[in-house]
Amino acid sequence: MSRVTLPIEKGCEELVLELIKLWGADAIRNSDGTKLNDFFENLDAKIYSTYFPAREDQDWPRENPEEIQHQALISERYTAFNDTLEIDPMEGYYKEQLEIDEKTTDYWQVFDRTTNSLVPKENWIFDGNVVKIGNALKFHEYTVNFFAKQTWDTTHMYNHMTNNWNSDKSIPYDIVFDKTREHIYSHLKKWCDRNTNINVVRFTTFFYHFTIMYNQHAMQKFGDWFGYSASVSPKMFEKFKEDKGYEITLEDIIDKGYYNNQFRNPSKVFLDYMDFMQKFVSTLAKVCVDIVHEYGKEAIMFVGDNWVGTEPYGKYFKNIGLDGVAGSAECGVDIRMVSDMENIKIKEIRFLPYLFPDTFYEGNTPHLEWEYNWMRSRRAILTKKVDRIGFGGYLSLAAKFPLFINSVTKSTNEFREIHEKTPNEECIKPHFKIGILNSWGKIKSWQSNRTGHATGIKENVSYIGVLEALSGLPYIIEFINFDDIKNSEKLSEFKVLINVGEANTSFSGGENWLDPNILNIVREFVAKGNGFIGIGDPSAAIGNGTYFQLQDVLGVDKEIGNTLQFSRYMEETKNRSIVFEQIQGKLSIGNRNKYIYSTSHNLEILQLNKEFGVEASINKYGKGKGVYLQGLPYSIENTRFIYNIIRYITDDVNKKYISDNIYVEAYEFNEYIAVINNSDKNIKTNITALGNIELERYELKWIKK
Amino acid sequence: MSRVTLPIEKGCEELVLELIKLWGADAIRNSDGTKLNDFFENLDAKIYSTYFPAREDQDWPRENPEEIQHQALISERYTAFNDTLEIDPMEGYYKEQLEIDEKTTDYWQVFDRTTNSLVPKENWIFDGNVVKIGNALKFHEYTVNFFAKQTWDTTHMYNHMTNNWNSDKSIPYDIVFDKTREHIYSHLKKWCDRNTNINVVRFTTFFYHFTIMYNQHAMQKFGDWFGYSASVSPKMFEKFKEDKGYEITLEDIIDKGYYNNQFRNPSKVFLDYMDFMQKFVSTLAKVCVDIVHEYGKEAIMFVGDNWVGTEPYGKYFKNIGLDGVAGSAECGVDIRMVSDMENIKIKEIRFLPYLFPDTFYEGNTPHLEWEYNWMRSRRAILTKKVDRIGFGGYLSLAAKFPLFINSVTKSTNEFREIHEKTPNEECIKPHFKIGILNSWGKIKSWQSNRTGHATGIKENVSYIGVLEALSGLPYIIEFINFDDIKNSEKLSEFKVLINVGEANTSFSGGENWLDPNILNIVREFVAKGNGFIGIGDPSAAIGNGTYFQLQDVLGVDKEIGNTLQFSRYMEETKNRSIVFEQIQGKLSIGNRNKYIYSTSHNLEILQLNKEFGVEASINKYGKGKGVYLQGLPYSIENTRFIYNIIRYITDDVNKKYISDNIYVEAYEFNEYIAVINNSDKNIKTNITALGNIELERYELKWIKK
Repeated sequence: MSRVTLPIEKGCEELVLELIKLWGADAIRNSDGTKLNDFFENLDAKIYSTYFPAREDQDWPRENPEEIQHQALISERYTAFNDTLEIDPMEGYYKEQLEIDEKTTDYWQVFDRTTNSLVPKENWIFDGNVVKIGNALKFHEYTVNFFAKQTWDTTHMYNHMTNNWNSDKSIPYDIVFDKTREHIYSHLKKWCDRNTNINVVRFTTFFYHFTIMYNQHAMQKFGDWFGYSASVSPKMFEKFKEDKGYEITLEDIIDKGYYNNQFRNPSKVFLDYMDFMQKFVSTLAKVCVDIVHEYGKEAIMFVGDNWVGTEPYGKYFKNIGLDGVAGSAECGVDIRMVSDMENIKIKEIRFLPYLFPDTFYEGNTPHLEWEYNWMRSRRAILTKKVDRIGFGGYLSLAAKFPLFINSVTKSTNEFREIHEKTPNEECIKPHFKIGILNSWGKIKSWQSNRTGHATGIKENVSYIGVLEALSGLPYIIEFINFDDIKNSEKLSEFKVLINVGEANTSFSGGENWLDPNILNIVREFVAKGNGFIGIGDPSAAIGNGTYFQLQDVLGVDKEIGNTLQFSRYMEETKNRSIVFEQIQGKLSIGNRNKYIYSTSHNLEILQLNKEFGVEASINKYGKGKGVYLQGLPYSIENTRFIYNIIRYITDDVNKKYISDNIYVEAYEFNEYIAVINNSDKNIKTNITALGNIELERYELKWIKK
Repeated sequence: MSRVTLPIEKGCEELVLELIKLWGADAIRNSDGTKLNDFFENLDAKIYSTYFPAREDQDWPRENPEEIQHQALISERYTAFNDTLEIDPMEGYYKEQLEIDEKTTDYWQVFDRTTNSLVPKENWIFDGNVVKIGNALKFHEYTVNFFAKQTWDTTHMYNHMTNNWNSDKSIPYDIVFDKTREHIYSHLKKWCDRNTNINVVRFTTFFYHFTIMYNQHAMQKFGDWFGYSASVSPKMFEKFKEDKGYEITLEDIIDKGYYNNQFRNPSKVFLDYMDFMQKFVSTLAKVCVDIVHEYGKEAIMFVGDNWVGTEPYGKYFKNIGLDGVAGSAECGVDIRMVSDMENIKIKEIRFLPYLFPDTFYEGNTPHLEWEYNWMRSRRAILTKKVDRIGFGGYLSLAAKFPLFINSVTKSTNEFREIHEKTPNEECIKPHFKIGILNSWGKIKSWQSNRTGHATGIKENVSYIGVLEALSGLPYIIEFINFDDIKNSEKLSEFKVLINVGEANTSFSGGENWLDPNILNIVREFVAKGNGFIGIGDPSAAIGNGTYFQLQDVLGVDKEIGNTLQFSRYMEETKNRSIVFEQIQGKLSIGNRNKYIYSTSHNLEILQLNKEFGVEASINKYGKGKGVYLQGLPYSIENTRFIYNIIRYITDDVNKKYISDNIYVEAYEFNEYIAVINNSDKNIKTNITALGNIELERYELKWIKK
């Protein structure tokens, strides 16, 4: 019994103990809202304790209000109806969360957003309440970039509101200040001194929270799990200048109001700021980890709340020296975001659903949610393992749902079985890599096209599905950016490049595709005999008489209103059997409203729609192939389809262990074949090189080779 | 009996005569495929005869092959897989229609489309079959811009193929050549001499055909009823230079392969070329008209085939001196395109369906198509009259469909009744104008968002509907462009501006919206108390932190993938009764897939959709209002809705003669109110200031004031 971490809960000691036994937990942990006690400390289990470096000691910010954290904000847009204009910067923000910092006005910026030009300092003043702009241009829109102080940690605030906590506000303090830095270290030492029973310090996370702002009604206004806006301050800007040798301004963070969110093609300055912060945070986080180690404890980090600068796929992450990383997951993409990390001993998953009343309420069926989450996650784990799993929240809530308890019991046993049957190995994969090409590359591995968790919303459901499919397919996946592909040695590791996303975003790549050099590199890559799979708006950018700049490779382009006078004559290819093997019916496509048309004489149209044109196609280009898909929401059919496509374009169509039932997948290891049923029905199937096999609903079966 | 023109048909003399009487025709005409004979010439009716100035005498082009017309073409895009590349310019074209003109290679251009740069002349040659490019850049795409000769008039070709005509190709000759010009004039004189019985010469049209190309399988490849590509030639380029003082090249016409189609924001050079052609054509067309007048005949023009340069809303059109114009119509927008013309005595409509076998085949129900066409057309005629109506094609085909014959009988009577009851007047309208603002303005009056006829396809159905609705509403509509609104005197005539179309097209306006001056003008216009109605992608352009550049006026913006991290809290306004008066149910929206979100505290959301956000809204801006609609396909509900919206934003909500049934509309004239039933059901309704009224299906009733 092992590899499982569970949350403790005061007052429910016996229940927790029972579940620890049932699920085989060997570690327990507290969380933001729970405290350890003697009962739990005396159990035969490793004890994790959350630690919040930037808000553990709430006396500190109250005694040192000058050293609390800042956040970069933009006001709403205001129109000048005459030559003066007053802007209340805090209009639309939640004043319990954020407070204007009057002392920072030297850094503030007023912008004319109609011309996107900076308003000279002499034309505006802040009078303590509002910014007064003079010499305004009539009918131009103006905004104010400003610094606010974070007077309530947003995760604490969220938990407070969601669970009706009744506690004082937790205020984050800023390690950028020398005094606070020393205090963070000394407080951690004191804490380690005091908490001798704690085996593992679980940093949640380190110093700066992801970007999140609430509106005047205390409802979330903006949330970007990848955002850096809550890390900045005048002091941090000074440090940036010391490091990079040039000034950074609020506008570099605020980005016209888009806050450099992860769908924006990143600017050079913002990439520099990320690089700087990662260096800065990893250096200071290492000191914390070293302290923990000095006390003979392990240090792990939860990739969650205050993870700015600690991106596990960033180049300074390994310097932190962590023993482990924990991440939250509900699907295969979430799993792979953790399991693909390098230089880390323990990779742990805190599964969703979180054991909170928003899911565990009377009449709901959390076991169905769990079965779906585990089905998707198990595929990814079989492809690339994590080391530990667990839950967060209140076990007492879960205990009211016996179907959920039973289902998790089965999953935890399966998880351990995977480790027992396939120690120290991954499932067998082809040697080549598949690259996901976007503007971010490696640093956002398994994080592309996501707003938070990888679950689809209308805007990303067509794009995230391919990643979910890939998360459980036996391939080495690597996320690469437009600089990476300029390195031909690097590119030679790949046999397939995938460009998936919406136009004008960092994930399709936007204006990168107007660079002839980039186009040439991809064209040459494909012409040599490799594959390029474009999903959604691959290589989309307006220019040169096409919209998809790689319409030559893809064999299709998108009607964006400029070529309506061209007649289109297209028909589905007759022999599409190879890539549609085992699939009944049609691919689902997701959200779209434009027409895709053929531009190539070599195009095989795999699926054609009267209203929307080419939904799926393969184009011969030189010795290679360009594949286009309008969208690929996650589904079992679409998963098998993309697997068939990849096998087809990499000449791997005779691969072993293919089930004739798309709900069944098989993973080859050194000694075993793991066969899974991804459906809630019993299945009899034939698997190539294995023969006939029967599986119960959601069963995992091990076949000795 | 009058105001109706019908086509003659040899061999069906008695039948034609019967229909002439039944429908009250007072004029007959031949067409491309029919010839007059004694029987028809002796009828008591005016005789129209088609005349094709550029292809009437088919001996001429055979004797003078050097003076036939040219066309600007672009080859397909070819990728250079090594440093040489061969391109067959004619690949993908129909060689019966177009033939390469080898003598024009000095004007040809080879483009590297990956960098959009011109390839130096010394790097390519045309060997009589293919263009051979040397020093090509590997993986770059290349195209050839070239001149072909038109060896088959495309309308003649179309008729030939559709009706299985068996005749020699009709070849268009080019009036740009002096010898041909003189021949065109002298041939017309001879023709007038010979055809003494002809009362009206119906030019079809003048000299240059709209752009149309067929592919290698003789299927239409590209067709732009608004295109100029078939008017160009080396000689015309010389004339252009004489007129405008600078060189024009093939690329100026070909426009990266988009052929400056009407959805493209027009370039300065292309606008100059249009201006030049309109001057050129109108001057020469005037000579033809003068000749016709000298012979005591009338001259009318069919706005159809060879109408390049004769745009009736262009500034040189009136110089031609025509007596009348005929246009083809199936709906209100088509009608208004003719009825809004100025400086013309006779405005005539040739209705669709065309009496051709593609509609009049056994089992089809052309009367239903006709009822729908007449319902939409009648609204427009009541708003702004045309003078005559008629049909084209084969009456013998129509005669097999008695329901069609009866329905047309009713319509022709109604048409005459409208003229009798409301002589020399238009229905009473408010004094202000409604402006349709796009990149073309007046010249494309009632032609915006159209690919050909105004019937919707997926891509324009959401945009064309508002024009169809307006075509039968009692307002003065004027199409204006971005230069026009810079003239404040001009702008003061308007109370409402409408910007309707898809992003990146001439109809939404594209990059015009990045001009702060344009933004200011519209903002000021609205702030003063006027209205701005945006439909689809109004003011869309990427920049300044918004997508709709007038999101301040509209109160909404569109999610194009850059603001997914913002939470949106929106609800429908409770009191939306004024603009939804009389309307049951919801507005239909048409084709879209993006989310529209509120950006304004003043926004009234009239219709909200969970998946797509704001579908219809009104925003207060200064003293005026910005209205946003995601789309407005033509429907009776949507027509009443836009009418209510306009009345609401122009403070005209108490207008008289509003029916409580949306299928019933009323038009006020000096002596009468015309009340129409736009449905195929009998209706009892109450009309404000008129009282209760009963109407039969599709009835038109006249109420004396």
